[in-house]
Amino acid sequence: MSLIVQKFGGSSVGDAAGIRRVAQRIVQTQRAGHQVVVVVSAMGDSTDELLDLAAQVSNDVAAAPREMDMLLSAGERISMALLAMGIQGLGSSAQSFTGSQAGMITDAIHGRARIISVSPHRIKTAIDRGDVAIVAGFQGMSRESNDITTLGRGGSDTTAVALAAALNADVCEIYTDVDGIYTADPRVVPSARKIDEISSEEMLEMAASGAKILHLRSVEYARRFGVRLHVRSSFSEQEGTWVLPSPDDQIKIQEGDPMEQPIISGVAHDRSEAKVTVVGVPDIPGKAAEIFGIVAGAHSNIDMIVQNVSTHGSGRTDISFTLPIVEGSEALAALKNAQDHVGYESVDYNEKIGKLSLIGAGMRSNPGVSYRFFKALSDAGVNIDMISTSEIRISVVTDADLLDRAVRAVHAAFDLDGETVATVHAGSGR
Amino acid sequence: MSLIVQKFGGSSVGDAAGIRRVAQRIVQTQRAGHQVVVVVSAMGDSTDELLDLAAQVSNDVAAAPREMDMLLSAGERISMALLAMGIQGLGSSAQSFTGSQAGMITDAIHGRARIISVSPHRIKTAIDRGDVAIVAGFQGMSRESNDITTLGRGGSDTTAVALAAALNADVCEIYTDVDGIYTADPRVVPSARKIDEISSEEMLEMAASGAKILHLRSVEYARRFGVRLHVRSSFSEQEGTWVLPSPDDQIKIQEGDPMEQPIISGVAHDRSEAKVTVVGVPDIPGKAAEIFGIVAGAHSNIDMIVQNVSTHGSGRTDISFTLPIVEGSEALAALKNAQDHVGYESVDYNEKIGKLSLIGAGMRSNPGVSYRFFKALSDAGVNIDMISTSEIRISVVTDADLLDRAVRAVHAAFDLDGETVATVHAGSGR
Repeated sequence: MSLIVQKFGGSSVGDAAGIRRVAQRIVQTQRAGHQVVVVVSAMGDSTDELLDLAAQVSNDVAAAPREMDMLLSAGERISMALLAMGIQGLGSSAQSFTGSQAGMITDAIHGRARIISVSPHRIKTAIDRGDVAIVAGFQGMSRESNDITTLGRGGSDTTAVALAAALNADVCEIYTDVDGIYTADPRVVPSARKIDEISSEEMLEMAASGAKILHLRSVEYARRFGVRLHVRSSFSEQEGTWVLPSPDDQIKIQEGDPMEQPIISGVAHDRSEAKVTVVGVPDIPGKAAEIFGIVAGAHSNIDMIVQNVSTHGSGRTDISFTLPIVEGSEALAALKNAQDHVGYESVDYNEKIGKLSLIGAGMRSNPGVSYRFFKALSDAGVNIDMISTSEIRISVVTDADLLDRAVRAVHAAFDLDGETVATVHAGSGR
Repeated sequence: MSLIVQKFGGSSVGDAAGIRRVAQRIVQTQRAGHQVVVVVSAMGDSTDELLDLAAQVSNDVAAAPREMDMLLSAGERISMALLAMGIQGLGSSAQSFTGSQAGMITDAIHGRARIISVSPHRIKTAIDRGDVAIVAGFQGMSRESNDITTLGRGGSDTTAVALAAALNADVCEIYTDVDGIYTADPRVVPSARKIDEISSEEMLEMAASGAKILHLRSVEYARRFGVRLHVRSSFSEQEGTWVLPSPDDQIKIQEGDPMEQPIISGVAHDRSEAKVTVVGVPDIPGKAAEIFGIVAGAHSNIDMIVQNVSTHGSGRTDISFTLPIVEGSEALAALKNAQDHVGYESVDYNEKIGKLSLIGAGMRSNPGVSYRFFKALSDAGVNIDMISTSEIRISVVTDADLLDRAVRAVHAAFDLDGETVATVHAGSGR
């Protein structure tokens, strides 16, 4: 008997028919002899409807983050209670639990709370009794104030992985609207290939580089706690993509693969970031740290960073970095506030950028990879604005308008095109 | 500075415009120098929509009472968070609290839980800090299992009164879609008059007799804990009806009222009950208690009871009683289960009944009242099926089809018709 955590997103439970279908799938897993814990998001568009109502009620909903979390957390209550009823209607027993009942304790940063601890006593009791336990994704309770919090984007994936870790589950199945992780976004590159297995490290780079299927935080969590992820479609029974963390589960090299060749996993892209350039920063030690401290204080997550050499002859330099567009205005305000203190000249802000990343093991030790990468971009007429690299990734920032063309060019240059065309269903966000 | 509890029903917060209007009203009360605690129901039709979804997901939602409570409790989360945002949007501070956060501890009977204790520490802290505290009506948390419970019909009124009692509030204002308690339902008797003040006792009889404005439980609670209720319209600024509990607040006799005359408060009616007749019960001591024990065991609330004299010459008698239609099938099943044990012959069940009640102080000592009452019914051609009386009430059960005619006849016979016609807005349930 295995313990399986299954996560279903909002598009899988978008209406009553979807909920019944998901209930069937869960009961099937349970009747195959497994213990099942289910994490579920809010139904389809319900989050947008709640946000819309909030905007009608107040002109400044951003000033009410605690209430926004209270509001949005209602969405999962509805989907999880309905799902539990659906399972009971099929003759199995099920109980639903809010984030707080499931022991998801977080910090108090509303709208993007981080998990502090997970104490799923009630979940354990429920599954040991033979029930399916349904848990609200995306939500928790703050340790200090006992207030309802939400985990922000990708929060339900994180809930699922955190529960899988705390319960020592055999696998955490992430059900989605595509049948696995692809070598590129099939909407941009229709010939993209499904990946059967990928390491947590590479998946981390894919997610950090904008692959939307799994959120970065959930992959980080899975890697740290050794959770085995299986990303698969809720619309089919096929195996999806396994994301495997520990050395025991290392990617099996396909027979015949040349061992010293780099293994390119795929191409990821991202339109959700903006570029900030702080111009004319005094080129003295500690200034960069000061700037990043200000941005962090505005709760912004910086991604790529480039510092130009001091070209002014005036002891000044420019610092560019990218961050999520949704965090842009707050970070910008904080920077402007501190202009006199830091002593920089001006700040530029650009949302019309795209990020493209190539991910694969053995990349660094193989100079041919970067040559092929930059040649493909250049042949496609794509200008490069920023570059950053890691052991297993090269990322570039380009014009937003050229991003799709760049993705297709790189995907083709590394022979990633498959023979079949991926099936894509309507997507969702939480 | 007074502490005021204000309760707004689902029709008052049916859409964004309604929520903004209610927010205005609350802020107005607070700026007049009062501490304000608000109890709110789910928005308009949202409960029906959730029930509809549940029916689409499972054929047997009655088998999932815990999940049903989880589902329905989402409704108040949405309305209370939006209301708090609306208040913040007007520049005041507000925080919303679930039933469990507000310290509403109940028993574990899902769907009709009873309040065991109220510990509103967080509410007290919030209002002492100057916030408006918004509390989810209708819901609590069970003491044994820490599960979400709902209080059943009229639950939000009960939440408001229970909070008012626990916080020792100066008044509990119940906002509704009519501008107070009327001498009869204005939808049936358009000439009905608004009552300015009524005692808790009379209100109790009105509520028990089917007056929908205040639920029986909330009036009982208010009477027991000395809570002053003010029932008024959320659509106007006019004074509504005061429901006053303690001897200090006794109804002021209007100047010129003859002191020894009975004061008729009004006519109430009710279509929500069914009549059960247990036929051929052995006429030996203890049999009635046995039957009522069985019904109570099915969590049914018996209202009127009539036991006929033993007419069979066979030592057998018939026992009739009324109970809420929604509790009928469960009670009936329990009775049928126990048929052999009790030894009765058969059981009849009739949902096509209506109950009419005349309420007023000094009724019993004034024989003219019952004469006038029964003559009015007889003149109107209304047959009477059951009769029950108390110190301040006469109730009769009639054919459901004749109920409206009966209400108008009795209302006219006691000169209750007013000169103005009541304003009635669309109604709601919780």
